[in-house]
Amino acid sequence: MSLFLPVKGGGEIAVKPSKIICLGLNYLEHIRESESVNVQNFTDEIPTEPVLFPKMPNVLIAPEEPIILPSFLHEYDFQDLRTDYEGELAIIVKDRIKNLKEAEAFDHIFGFTCFNDVSQRNLQRSDKSGWFRGKSLDTFGPIGPVVVPPGLIGDVQDLQIETRLNGRVVQQSNTSRMIFSVEQIMAFVSRNFTMEPGDIIVTGTPSGVGPLQDGDVVEVEIEGIGLLRNPVRNE
Amino acid sequence: MSLFLPVKGGGEIAVKPSKIICLGLNYLEHIRESESVNVQNFTDEIPTEPVLFPKMPNVLIAPEEPIILPSFLHEYDFQDLRTDYEGELAIIVKDRIKNLKEAEAFDHIFGFTCFNDVSQRNLQRSDKSGWFRGKSLDTFGPIGPVVVPPGLIGDVQDLQIETRLNGRVVQQSNTSRMIFSVEQIMAFVSRNFTMEPGDIIVTGTPSGVGPLQDGDVVEVEIEGIGLLRNPVRNE
Repeated sequence: MSLFLPVKGGGEIAVKPSKIICLGLNYLEHIRESESVNVQNFTDEIPTEPVLFPKMPNVLIAPEEPIILPSFLHEYDFQDLRTDYEGELAIIVKDRIKNLKEAEAFDHIFGFTCFNDVSQRNLQRSDKSGWFRGKSLDTFGPIGPVVVPPGLIGDVQDLQIETRLNGRVVQQSNTSRMIFSVEQIMAFVSRNFTMEPGDIIVTGTPSGVGPLQDGDVVEVEIEGIGLLRNPVRNE
Repeated sequence: MSLFLPVKGGGEIAVKPSKIICLGLNYLEHIRESESVNVQNFTDEIPTEPVLFPKMPNVLIAPEEPIILPSFLHEYDFQDLRTDYEGELAIIVKDRIKNLKEAEAFDHIFGFTCFNDVSQRNLQRSDKSGWFRGKSLDTFGPIGPVVVPPGLIGDVQDLQIETRLNGRVVQQSNTSRMIFSVEQIMAFVSRNFTMEPGDIIVTGTPSGVGPLQDGDVVEVEIEGIGLLRNPVRNE
């Protein structure tokens, strides 16, 4: 598990977070579609603070590595198996932070990259303990292709974000439509948890999530960063 | 964040897991009391498979380090704040495993130790995404005092486990009363996630969970391992 990504402007970074903290429900249009995904505790209310959930580091894979749909899911009584793509902007934390002020947020960001928050819906809605397991299966976190430092990305709150499935556009939005901004997210997350250098925060997905199948190719592209492409395979 | 524990038989180990996977509802008597804790998705059914949730590595503290009750919780509208102790047996994984067979489980365990799965109940029951945040606040995972290899612990499925709050016994059970055994847990967890050397699996708490307050001292003692003691402080 040694994953390195190039850094825009020079060098590379080892992707080895002590934790990956993700936001749910951070784009209005995705909140409205979430009922159809049958997620536990669905409500169409806009959250009053970021909704956080984790992914484990075993999810991380590089561009072009396959997302694996695991075979053990067939041992359950699920009617229809559904594992979705979710294209998202990821933040890589620069240094140890706790109780960060919003105004200081960009001083503590190493860079930004693309992320695919692959989500197994059957587990996500059936597990008593919440969304965790369906979000953390092996290979469920493609990341890359490059990390762009804050000074080289322009306005991070005005980037086109698009997901394509087998070449067809399935998600298309702009980071300006995030409910909680990068600064607000950095402040909120670091109020809850001490964040370490290299930790990853994933900022939520726009509408248009949908299922992945064996043989698919999924691409997440964010303006100013690049294109994260991964094939999908049955185990 | 450098935490080392002595290993029975010699040496020491750096406690630096890539993930901490915990079981909920693994003792019958705790399932029966869980309604009073108001945990989300309560049911008194016995789980048909282990119920998993994570803690983040920022929870880890050594024996005698303080559990901190965070001040930001006062900014919410919660009626009564409640943060509980939960005494548990922890497993430290020896090597990289995936899809382990039950019969091989003990070959892939580095050792066992005591763990306190400190749990913030208000967040645990109110967060849309599940139990995650209330389980992962800083200092919410005391661990130690020593790691005991499988060959030196006797029958790990017949150990007295006791939690004391300010000297008073509040939890008292035996690991023989776990619903899922160490072997079953190792097989199930490694079917879901590739486990790495040093990863921690926490095996669930018996009945008797209860609230912690500023000035308390909480002790988790497991037969054949030792005593994990931590003071409690308001932030």
